[in-house]
Amino acid sequence: MISVVIIGLGNIGSHLYTAFSKLDNVSVVMLYNRTEEALLPFKNKVKSTTDSNQLPDADIYIIATSDDSIAAVSKQLSLKNKLVVHTSGSVSIAVLDDKNRKGSFYPLQTFSKGATVNFKEIPICIEAEDKADEALLLQLAESVSDNVHKISSEQRKSMHLAAVFVNNFTNHLYHIGKEICEENKVPFSILSPLIQETVTKLNKLSPFNAQTGPAKRNDTGTMQRHLTELTNNTHKEIYSVLSKSITNTYGKKL
Amino acid sequence: MISVVIIGLGNIGSHLYTAFSKLDNVSVVMLYNRTEEALLPFKNKVKSTTDSNQLPDADIYIIATSDDSIAAVSKQLSLKNKLVVHTSGSVSIAVLDDKNRKGSFYPLQTFSKGATVNFKEIPICIEAEDKADEALLLQLAESVSDNVHKISSEQRKSMHLAAVFVNNFTNHLYHIGKEICEENKVPFSILSPLIQETVTKLNKLSPFNAQTGPAKRNDTGTMQRHLTELTNNTHKEIYSVLSKSITNTYGKKL
Repeated sequence: MISVVIIGLGNIGSHLYTAFSKLDNVSVVMLYNRTEEALLPFKNKVKSTTDSNQLPDADIYIIATSDDSIAAVSKQLSLKNKLVVHTSGSVSIAVLDDKNRKGSFYPLQTFSKGATVNFKEIPICIEAEDKADEALLLQLAESVSDNVHKISSEQRKSMHLAAVFVNNFTNHLYHIGKEICEENKVPFSILSPLIQETVTKLNKLSPFNAQTGPAKRNDTGTMQRHLTELTNNTHKEIYSVLSKSITNTYGKKL
Repeated sequence: MISVVIIGLGNIGSHLYTAFSKLDNVSVVMLYNRTEEALLPFKNKVKSTTDSNQLPDADIYIIATSDDSIAAVSKQLSLKNKLVVHTSGSVSIAVLDDKNRKGSFYPLQTFSKGATVNFKEIPICIEAEDKADEALLLQLAESVSDNVHKISSEQRKSMHLAAVFVNNFTNHLYHIGKEICEENKVPFSILSPLIQETVTKLNKLSPFNAQTGPAKRNDTGTMQRHLTELTNNTHKEIYSVLSKSITNTYGKKL
């Protein structure tokens, strides 16, 4: 039985509690939150406290607070030589206070309040300084997810950079696509099945092999026409830079 | 009953035949293909020919050949004053031969051979010069899909440009994300749930409201760190241009 204390009952802390509470091999022995309000939904289910000096003995203490407060929260804990982990993608485990053993338990997903989450499919990245701690985090992670990875703070940093490209930047391209549609009175929803198909294809093909379009074919006529059609200078610039990158990628290798 | 002749039995022609053959109000009276081979799978189901002079009378003739051969195929038909449409997104209906009435019946999706397709969800864009022809195409399109749009050649052109952004360019960003992961020995599959979630969110939020990340927050520290981490100059350029565009989008409106 792995005993766990969850520190911070925001989105991620709440989702972790829900996932852990369904497991036979994990026992959530206490929830801690600075304010009483966030603890109310759990009152009848599990012990909880707003006093950080009242934390019981446990195998793992999970700090699920905002990135900026992880260091301060870990410092404030009156624990010694315990395994204390955070749930952040962008924070190194080095920020955790030295009086405890350090680690990270990071589910890579956007959590929204109220939305149900299928934890089985969510990648969980774990890290610990100590081998035995790593094994324990692995066991906890594999109890909730089929998609667990041992990741260093360095790798987690690069994963975050990759996520900016595949999440933040693609979302902005959707925004530009929507603007082009609206300028021409075409409903953006018309592109939804194509957007979904672009993602679904990744299950069968690498993005390198799935690439299509004028830049891939080095179809300079169409690219020139598209640049003329674009009315927004930033959109023109994005079109040029991404087309150049695609043409270079395939020019080199074909 | 709408009678249809399908001209060209490639991916799209085959998928159209399959969809039409299930309908009570549509009758496919003939398939035409230049070569016999593509017609073989349909031999016992419907009349077919390799002689373009043998086409029977029908309400709609659908040319489902490659973009480049639409003009030539339409010229070669020994028909007069019939409704002849093509299935291309990037070709104007003006390229169709003047001896017949012109139109377009364009399903906006990537079709793969052998893969089953749920036509009900695929957007179909129709266009015709004549109002009665437009009504007939609308009736045919609405028989197979719940997602039908009347679109001018001009609008279809801009839809294509938007598709380059949301399909070709996002796919290239997936490729870059994969390269960053591989450089740092992180499996790209770790990002799959996040990629899917970015798309799923579009059902609930506009891409404008769904935007997250350092550029949206104008977090110059993180952006500077990311630029230092990137080893590929083209990736740096893409990062800069897209971040600038995001910062400008929200700087203006927040």
